[in-house]
Amino acid sequence: MTDTGNGGPGRSGRRPGQSGTREAILDAARARFAEVGFDKASIRSIAGVAGVDPALVHHYFGTKAELLTAALDLPIDPTLITDQIAAVPVDALGETIVRAVVGVWDSPLGLQAVAFFRTVLGGDATLARQFLLEVVLKDVRSRVDSPPGSGATRVVLAASQMIGVLVGRKIVGIEPLASMPVDQLARIVGPTLQRYLTGDIGL
Amino acid sequence: MTDTGNGGPGRSGRRPGQSGTREAILDAARARFAEVGFDKASIRSIAGVAGVDPALVHHYFGTKAELLTAALDLPIDPTLITDQIAAVPVDALGETIVRAVVGVWDSPLGLQAVAFFRTVLGGDATLARQFLLEVVLKDVRSRVDSPPGSGATRVVLAASQMIGVLVGRKIVGIEPLASMPVDQLARIVGPTLQRYLTGDIGL
Repeated sequence: MTDTGNGGPGRSGRRPGQSGTREAILDAARARFAEVGFDKASIRSIAGVAGVDPALVHHYFGTKAELLTAALDLPIDPTLITDQIAAVPVDALGETIVRAVVGVWDSPLGLQAVAFFRTVLGGDATLARQFLLEVVLKDVRSRVDSPPGSGATRVVLAASQMIGVLVGRKIVGIEPLASMPVDQLARIVGPTLQRYLTGDIGL
Repeated sequence: MTDTGNGGPGRSGRRPGQSGTREAILDAARARFAEVGFDKASIRSIAGVAGVDPALVHHYFGTKAELLTAALDLPIDPTLITDQIAAVPVDALGETIVRAVVGVWDSPLGLQAVAFFRTVLGGDATLARQFLLEVVLKDVRSRVDSPPGSGATRVVLAASQMIGVLVGRKIVGIEPLASMPVDQLARIVGPTLQRYLTGDIGL
């Protein structure tokens, strides 16, 4: 068990023991998420592996989705993207998703995102897959779940097109995709996403 | 310069010197393609770097596109895919490409293709990008070049969707995409490719 009670509070409000506890929780979360998946990994079991009280996990990291986000040590705050998507009606999701995702990846922050993405593609994608499904796509999935049960398929198809755009534009660097203006990209690729998300695709 | 003339012909028809020459040509080709790109890398310059006669390059490897294919040391013969695509009219390209590409990647050969793709994504994608554009997509590009000049954009957009399907299905392994029957995938994703290749997308 990591001791969080040693010493008085530092000026920064962070003590070595606190940092150790946070890391122990993140390690435990990565292990549990990888072993049993996001749904079955309870905060209680993660706290048990880390040797801390479950309340401390909530205190440090909030929800289980937020804990997963922290465990991935992402270079970008995903709410930069998900907030934009949440703000528009479903019939505007296609172009909005292209603009939001490509906008962030084209920004200075995007360089680190590309490096992170390369690592995911080259290694074990378990945590990244859970993050994509449980954090990034979860809200959209419930919004496009028509007919009921189709939402999971719809969002994963949309994700496949966005993954392809990002790989082509940022990883493999294929022209003219690599330097296509985001407005043009949104006009061309947006309808693809819109069809996957709300169109009749036989689901 | 590699000497190919030593010793008599072996029973297999392959001599050590011949194998050394082939490797020298492939090394020279990889270097020139990476340095100046496919278009500017002449067979003559590659032969010069390898210290052999240009005729020998043609003799061993055929066309420059075939030399690039050999230089990449691909686990799959790309004509397994391109022959299927060449055999259908342009208005059937969408579904045909999905079936051909996914069919090969889902086959036992596909396991090695996935490993190869991971390597490309994690490292220098220069040769793989040239291969995609100059070998895999070249014929389709000329077939869908309407209005003139739009073909390059059209095929790269189609490639982005196929890359995303392959990453989602074979690398990251996102359900339900990972186990979706190829018929359903072709019905859903085929129209996306068809629109990129022959639809009105403002080009």
